[in-house]
Amino acid sequence: MTAPTDQTAAKAGQTLISVDAMGGDQGPAIVVAGCALSAKVNPDITLILHGDESVLAPLVAKRRELQGRCEIRHAADVVTMDDKPSQVVRTGKDTSMWSAIESVRTHEAAVAVSCGNTGALMALSMIRLKKLPGVNRPAIAVLYPSSNPQGFNVILDVGADVRADAEDLMRYALMGASYARNGMDLKRPRVGLLNVGTEEHKGRAELKEAFDLIRGQSDDAGYDFVGFVEGVDVSGTRADVIVTDGFTGNVAIKTGEGTASMIGARLREAFKYSPLSRLASLLAYTSLQRLSKKIDPRRVNGGVFLGLNGTVVKSHGSADAMGVSAAIKLAAQLSANRFNDKIATRVAVVLPGEEKSE
Amino acid sequence: MTAPTDQTAAKAGQTLISVDAMGGDQGPAIVVAGCALSAKVNPDITLILHGDESVLAPLVAKRRELQGRCEIRHAADVVTMDDKPSQVVRTGKDTSMWSAIESVRTHEAAVAVSCGNTGALMALSMIRLKKLPGVNRPAIAVLYPSSNPQGFNVILDVGADVRADAEDLMRYALMGASYARNGMDLKRPRVGLLNVGTEEHKGRAELKEAFDLIRGQSDDAGYDFVGFVEGVDVSGTRADVIVTDGFTGNVAIKTGEGTASMIGARLREAFKYSPLSRLASLLAYTSLQRLSKKIDPRRVNGGVFLGLNGTVVKSHGSADAMGVSAAIKLAAQLSANRFNDKIATRVAVVLPGEEKSE
Repeated sequence: MTAPTDQTAAKAGQTLISVDAMGGDQGPAIVVAGCALSAKVNPDITLILHGDESVLAPLVAKRRELQGRCEIRHAADVVTMDDKPSQVVRTGKDTSMWSAIESVRTHEAAVAVSCGNTGALMALSMIRLKKLPGVNRPAIAVLYPSSNPQGFNVILDVGADVRADAEDLMRYALMGASYARNGMDLKRPRVGLLNVGTEEHKGRAELKEAFDLIRGQSDDAGYDFVGFVEGVDVSGTRADVIVTDGFTGNVAIKTGEGTASMIGARLREAFKYSPLSRLASLLAYTSLQRLSKKIDPRRVNGGVFLGLNGTVVKSHGSADAMGVSAAIKLAAQLSANRFNDKIATRVAVVLPGEEKSE
Repeated sequence: MTAPTDQTAAKAGQTLISVDAMGGDQGPAIVVAGCALSAKVNPDITLILHGDESVLAPLVAKRRELQGRCEIRHAADVVTMDDKPSQVVRTGKDTSMWSAIESVRTHEAAVAVSCGNTGALMALSMIRLKKLPGVNRPAIAVLYPSSNPQGFNVILDVGADVRADAEDLMRYALMGASYARNGMDLKRPRVGLLNVGTEEHKGRAELKEAFDLIRGQSDDAGYDFVGFVEGVDVSGTRADVIVTDGFTGNVAIKTGEGTASMIGARLREAFKYSPLSRLASLLAYTSLQRLSKKIDPRRVNGGVFLGLNGTVVKSHGSADAMGVSAAIKLAAQLSANRFNDKIATRVAVVLPGEEKSE
């Protein structure tokens, strides 16, 4: 049996996105509002909203933009932020998250979006969608605010697995470059391998091996390998894609997020310090608000699970309607670019003897 | 032969600091200015300045605070920022950095301070001072800006070694807690072990082992073990001491530093955006300057090498006189507290059969 291509169920020219409408701290009203925002600016998307029909139907009915472009698929149960991933995998069949992933598994939609519990979403995605041929460890990729023209760098893995060997890191480079090309429109992304220094002799043994493997793939895979990069380059301009293991990546982005929060808090204090600085904060209010949207790593949406049979976009649990809309926009772009088929082809190619998946 | 106690050569009640006066991007004038600042506010310190006498003598002569409290020890050569550590170890005998460490090796001073090349300073310190009994891997500890009352958290290791096993991590906890107690006046520091989640089942195998070892030492070593912490806690309030391997620690703090720089740059842009925001930046200038001094990780001084026979304080290469003075203040405090003797006792105690060093 040949696998159907992406978006089988979508109308011609339409991109169908599967949305877990119940996940997230903000509740379904915010998710539906985000869907409406997205539908308004993008006439090519249609949506399946998974969740409690009695809750979702009135919310959808209020949104003119969603009429005729949004199917509600009933799921009685919800995965909460406290649910254990192992538990959800065993007993979560009736949840909106399970149902949203199921639409990707059956190739009805190419991409699923959820604001829910990350651990449960990863576990369900792994078990239901299964790994792509040639992928040993899937990865979570996030967009991190950077000084590059596109405003973000792709960092992966940030926590799908705490280990990664040289071959895994090489596949992260392939998948990350593909993500940067299809999600950020970068024709020839620059890939860097995260290390404690930029000299070739530095770091752990598996990193030196990964260095050679990643360099070896750069021509075929259409990226520039800039070699080892350091923590400062995560938000810097030396690379567009930062490759690392999930332990280091997770700690690094959370340290960056914590630092940004701390600076934000101190900045607010500083502006309250004197009458002059209070006046200053009023004058600069708009500029500061714009800035905080641009550079706060917590506001960036769209962590993406890579290396599975289908793409899953994780939006922040605390995302507002704009955040949900950004995640759906990313999902639509990846889906329209047939992103997952491209990754499948790419990672299969580097495994001699593996059957290509497209 | 019994080892002489710290500060043999200092006058009674005086703390003698050995200073590499030639290292750093800013040149010896800044180092001498920093020494003078420090001498002015702390009547108990005396200094040995290592470096080119013909350069240092006129600089010292201009500083009233240093008269009679500062010996110049001639060293003709300088370690540059580009020198390879391996090269410095072989041929660096005549450098000011070597000479500064030599004063610690001979127990003339308890602590050395340098703004020079970190790699060379670590390599020289390791080879000349040697590891304390019971220490397999020395560590570099830094103070990272945090929301805790003391304003900083201790993070170690941030790059002395790219590996650390469970026993190493336990010794980092002992040394880090001692540093927090003696360098930041925290009576009972809270120690956290850096991981990708706070649940006990998460993370790599060696971390679970380290978790038990660190918890097991907490009563004897006088710290509270708060368990696993995450990247956000590096600048947060859950712990005072963050324990991790040198690879993860190095990437984490550099990611945080990069993020802080990016935010600073964008903030300056935001304040130039409109006439109103330009006016705002003028009004808030003092508050913002004060803030940037407090929270920019690059401005924090005093990375400390732990686990050697003697303490070495690494001040930032780009430090100004205030930065150098802060590093000397830290060195004086650690020296006055007989910090290294305490660490030696502590790490020796956990090794059954090892001879205690005090």
